[in-house]
Amino acid sequence: MRMVDIIEKKRDGLILTQEEIRFVIDGYIKDEIPDYQMSAWLMAVFFQGMAPEETAELTLAMAESGDQIDLSKIDGVKVDKHSTGGVGDTTTLILAPLVAAVGVPVAKMSGRGLGHTGGTIDKLEAVSGFHVEVSEQQFNDLVNENKVAVVGQSGNLAPADKKIYGLRDVTATVNSIPLIASSIMSKKIAAGADAIVLDVKVGSGAFMKEMEDAQALASTMVEIGEQVGRKTAAVISDMNQPLGYAVGNALEVKEAIDTLKGKGPADLHELCLVLGSKMVVLAGKAESEHEARAMLEEVIENGKALEVFKTFLSAQGGDASVVDHPEKLPVAEYKIPVVSEAAGFVEGITADKIGTAAMLLGAGRATKDSVIDLSVGIVLHKKIGDEVKKDEPLATIHSNNESVSESAKKILQAYKISNTRPNASPLIKG
Amino acid sequence: MRMVDIIEKKRDGLILTQEEIRFVIDGYIKDEIPDYQMSAWLMAVFFQGMAPEETAELTLAMAESGDQIDLSKIDGVKVDKHSTGGVGDTTTLILAPLVAAVGVPVAKMSGRGLGHTGGTIDKLEAVSGFHVEVSEQQFNDLVNENKVAVVGQSGNLAPADKKIYGLRDVTATVNSIPLIASSIMSKKIAAGADAIVLDVKVGSGAFMKEMEDAQALASTMVEIGEQVGRKTAAVISDMNQPLGYAVGNALEVKEAIDTLKGKGPADLHELCLVLGSKMVVLAGKAESEHEARAMLEEVIENGKALEVFKTFLSAQGGDASVVDHPEKLPVAEYKIPVVSEAAGFVEGITADKIGTAAMLLGAGRATKDSVIDLSVGIVLHKKIGDEVKKDEPLATIHSNNESVSESAKKILQAYKISNTRPNASPLIKG
Repeated sequence: MRMVDIIEKKRDGLILTQEEIRFVIDGYIKDEIPDYQMSAWLMAVFFQGMAPEETAELTLAMAESGDQIDLSKIDGVKVDKHSTGGVGDTTTLILAPLVAAVGVPVAKMSGRGLGHTGGTIDKLEAVSGFHVEVSEQQFNDLVNENKVAVVGQSGNLAPADKKIYGLRDVTATVNSIPLIASSIMSKKIAAGADAIVLDVKVGSGAFMKEMEDAQALASTMVEIGEQVGRKTAAVISDMNQPLGYAVGNALEVKEAIDTLKGKGPADLHELCLVLGSKMVVLAGKAESEHEARAMLEEVIENGKALEVFKTFLSAQGGDASVVDHPEKLPVAEYKIPVVSEAAGFVEGITADKIGTAAMLLGAGRATKDSVIDLSVGIVLHKKIGDEVKKDEPLATIHSNNESVSESAKKILQAYKISNTRPNASPLIKG
Repeated sequence: MRMVDIIEKKRDGLILTQEEIRFVIDGYIKDEIPDYQMSAWLMAVFFQGMAPEETAELTLAMAESGDQIDLSKIDGVKVDKHSTGGVGDTTTLILAPLVAAVGVPVAKMSGRGLGHTGGTIDKLEAVSGFHVEVSEQQFNDLVNENKVAVVGQSGNLAPADKKIYGLRDVTATVNSIPLIASSIMSKKIAAGADAIVLDVKVGSGAFMKEMEDAQALASTMVEIGEQVGRKTAAVISDMNQPLGYAVGNALEVKEAIDTLKGKGPADLHELCLVLGSKMVVLAGKAESEHEARAMLEEVIENGKALEVFKTFLSAQGGDASVVDHPEKLPVAEYKIPVVSEAAGFVEGITADKIGTAAMLLGAGRATKDSVIDLSVGIVLHKKIGDEVKKDEPLATIHSNNESVSESAKKILQAYKISNTRPNASPLIKG
């Protein structure tokens, strides 16, 4: 087998065999296939796409390129959730205790990563004492006992995906549905999930700007799941504005607590119920999403979800009293309002601009070595459809630095104010 | 400027600026742009093509990446000719003295290269004593005196093309019209030609199998010539069978001598007159191709073309008596006929299979270090449309080895014999 022939075959739109796909991935991870052949192949994939069976094989080959987490010592169907980007997305913090409260085991390994805000682990570390370094044995025990644990990612998961992503990033081959889908799914599969619920964001602030692309990505990932024997479901949700009101680590923890109390923002609450219902069904704990939703609503109402959250925090060393006293979370020194320059109605809020504004305050990592300020961030006051007067606050910046002009500028740029009330856009789009 | 943005722009089908194209080529030749970005860009070009102004700039950037030959000390308009592959193509050997005989200066620098037979220089070295190592001063003097000289290529012509071609070869990006066209034209421009006549081969034995592709290549190259200010003309000629009868170095020299005497194969004779007429017109020595053709026919008839060939050979140390005594050329020990296994009519002769058969005999170079046997080769007896009886010779193998079964097998495979007389296919197709 020669790589040049495989490139040519893909270039000409033919379907590669399983052996050919394995040859590409195994050869690349072993440095037997050079970057320049891989990048030509990736560009050919960009133009010609991949058939479902090719994408599935690519996913498996990448998933099997490194360590594969074994969750078999944890009872029940382990369901993982993945969101494709998004800003102010606090769903994981909420969903983990929420579905655990109805008996779905949540065995979450999470990285820190780069982004507008920290990852789930960073956010949880806003709770004093919380730690994520536990042994495999402890991890299994924690989940079996409390149904939920979130730990730092150990091992070398899907190194082929990591190497290929690095190359895609510098060769303009990121934006390809089969490559994005296989990248996401390979990591979830290597992380040991039995079932996967996907939240594909669409809109101005998401990676997928168009509904058509979001649908293609969602259906490609579900298809991969089917081909490789992992139950997979997908939701397409709106990212024409940030989810909820809070963007920032401690601020999002507070919002998650509010939501677990049944007092969270409507959109965040709704999305958690939709995603959670799918997780409960895939885990076999309910027959229908309708039934699952009722179960989740019940554990919010009766306080069980909140109880599980407290137990989970305590079990990993965290100070669970923050749940009743959120003022114990890190607080920024300055709270600076950003006021509207015009009167009218909010038509849209470019989520990634809000994300950049939060990043400028120190809420996220620009490079691997950046230090995150857990206390800073942005709280929105106006969302799509809201009426706004001139000089009325659109948002409040939480900062440890008096000078926030760059960040404020980004927030103003993000808000699109129009004269007429916009039509409501549904949160759940597919 | 970032290479990743230029890849993305080309990927999305946009037209690159002159600065962007220069950035790509200059950066690549200086090793500032890595192979993996270049190959992704080449694959994007494969899919999206290039606009005429992009192809022209690419050609110039490659031409200017190394030495550029200065032919300004040679009087007159220097016209170069290029054929895109082909087997048994002896046209350069004939055209050089032929157009020189009507006053068109031929200042040819030629490489040895790889292929079915040697290059023009190898073929000329079949003439005892002929040498190609002359100084620049001598080269200019020779052309000014005799109107023709053929020397070995010195200097580093279009190194960017060489480097890019090496990468294309292993990344399935060879087969792209703008990349092929710019590769050919960059070398001709660096070699100092004022005007260029192109012979684009089409058919089963050529790189371009389809007329449509050959036309696209021809018009792209003519367009490049126009954009960069070099008069350029193109002919599309048939390669559904080898040109002439001889394939092999000394055998082709003999055929060239025959043709200069007016006794060559009809197709080779005709193609030389067509290409030669265009060269004469571009050189400004005739008003029309009709007039040019008459001039060329005259110098064949009155022996002047043959005289120039003799002078040219002598001037570079060659034994000009071979012209009158072709038996002085290297002769192979064995002459082995290949007979037809069927009766019928010749419908086609796959030229590259005949080329491979010649290569197996030692007529060409497989690697840079291969030693060529100038005496060996193949002489065809039957061409398209000829009737053939069972056991009648199709061709004769000239070999220095008794065992020629591999080569004979290839020749039999190359011949397509049918029951009905095929329609004649014109030699000149466009």
